[in-house]
Amino acid sequence: MKIRIGYGWDSHAFKPGVPLRIGGLAIEHPEGLAGHSDGDVLLHAITDALLGAVAAGDIGSFFPPGDPRWKGADSAIFLNIALEEIQNAGYRIANVDTTLVLAAPRIGPIAGEMRERVASLLDIPLGDISIKAKTPEGLGLDHVAQAHATVLLER
Amino acid sequence: MKIRIGYGWDSHAFKPGVPLRIGGLAIEHPEGLAGHSDGDVLLHAITDALLGAVAAGDIGSFFPPGDPRWKGADSAIFLNIALEEIQNAGYRIANVDTTLVLAAPRIGPIAGEMRERVASLLDIPLGDISIKAKTPEGLGLDHVAQAHATVLLER
Amino acid sequence: MKIRIGYGWDSHAFKPGVPLRIGGLAIEHPEGLAGHSDGDVLLHAITDALLGAVAAGDIGSFFPPGDPRWKGADSAIFLNIALEEIQNAGYRIANVDTTLVLAAPRIGPIAGEMRERVASLLDIPLGDISIKAKTPEGLGLDHVAQAHATVLLER
Ligand SMILES: [Mg+2]
Ligand SMILES: [Mg+2]
Ligand SMILES: [Mg+2]
Repeated sequence: MKIRIGYGWDSHAFKPGVPLRIGGLAIEHPEGLAGHSDGDVLLHAITDALLGAVAAGDIGSFFPPGDPRWKGADSAIFLNIALEEIQNAGYRIANVDTTLVLAAPRIGPIAGEMRERVASLLDIPLGDISIKAKTPEGLGLDHVAQAHATVLLER
Repeated sequence: MKIRIGYGWDSHAFKPGVPLRIGGLAIEHPEGLAGHSDGDVLLHAITDALLGAVAAGDIGSFFPPGDPRWKGADSAIFLNIALEEIQNAGYRIANVDTTLVLAAPRIGPIAGEMRERVASLLDIPLGDISIKAKTPEGLGLDHVAQAHATVLLER
Repeated sequence: MKIRIGYGWDSHAFKPGVPLRIGGLAIEHPEGLAGHSDGDVLLHAITDALLGAVAAGDIGSFFPPGDPRWKGADSAIFLNIALEEIQNAGYRIANVDTTLVLAAPRIGPIAGEMRERVASLLDIPLGDISIKAKTPEGLGLDHVAQAHATVLLER
């Protein structure tokens, strides 16, 4: 067995009047995440973790922020490119563990649905994807969402 | 061999007149960590890393912050639930690596004792738990403690 | 096969009139990273990840910040000590994945050269080291560089 590890991180600021999209889900909330694409902080962190695990670059090298093609893009497109990279390298996902850090909205009530969506996007069993959430206690970061993602690959 | 990875993160603000508890140790310090439970930022991060590795939820789903049962609770209780979850899933801990980020107190002089305490709580050999520390240089976060924990499980 | 995981994190503030050194590379930039050593935030994070994976302490325990011996030191020295520790423990590196978080300079154009340098310092194939970069969107941290490093060891 050969194994590899990857870690990805991302942040986006909240912005009024923008739809909120996290983990491929549209979420009811007064603000969304600002970004060139759909601002999906969780899918971006997972994408970077997958690319990092096979040393294939990073999300910015595949999808330059200024490129008009990715304006408002569905971040599932980014994730799919990362999945292709790990397949090309001959690996499959053992498991993915993620942590969202944000003051609001509460993730707990929608974590199940979000996991199902991400499992489907990654084409892995529900038991191999974890989505945890924390508030940024003491950090003064209530206007930002951050995501950490760690992945283990095997072949 | 089957393996899984987990990553947990936590933060708590320092608060005067509260006992400081990190890694299950009572530490002499003018301030402690504010929180609904005993505020043990390190045990919370490890708990989340373990839960995440087996996709069993997060510390907030097992121990909702508002629940009066966990007011001032010993965070070893949270850790024990996470250990049960990984045992139920058939896994054991390969190793745990953690990083505390805080301006004070200095962790170096007590890191050995803290490792012994955490090893005992996790019921693993001393050589399978690492506790590192950093100051938050340039971040303006001297009033907060953060913890990162990463775990590798095998069965 | 025995495997172990490690995670390291570091931050340094930018400071005018100091040479910038990241990943062992001298980088043209108006500011460098303040620190007792050469301030190489990426090598520090990798050093801590390696030490953590074999539970051998942290960069501060080997190289106390105040020690005059390490004033302006080349951080490759720190990395070499960590490599000795993992060799002494009988492990080799499976792969290393890193993430730089900084507003400037842009890492993309020099990421290839930086990977070659770090691969050479770690004495591993280029395909086993990843260097990703992100800007700290929404965090108000344009004056700081942070690095995350995760490593997988095997024997
Ligand atoms: Mg992003
Ligand atoms: Mg906590
Ligand atoms: Mg440093």
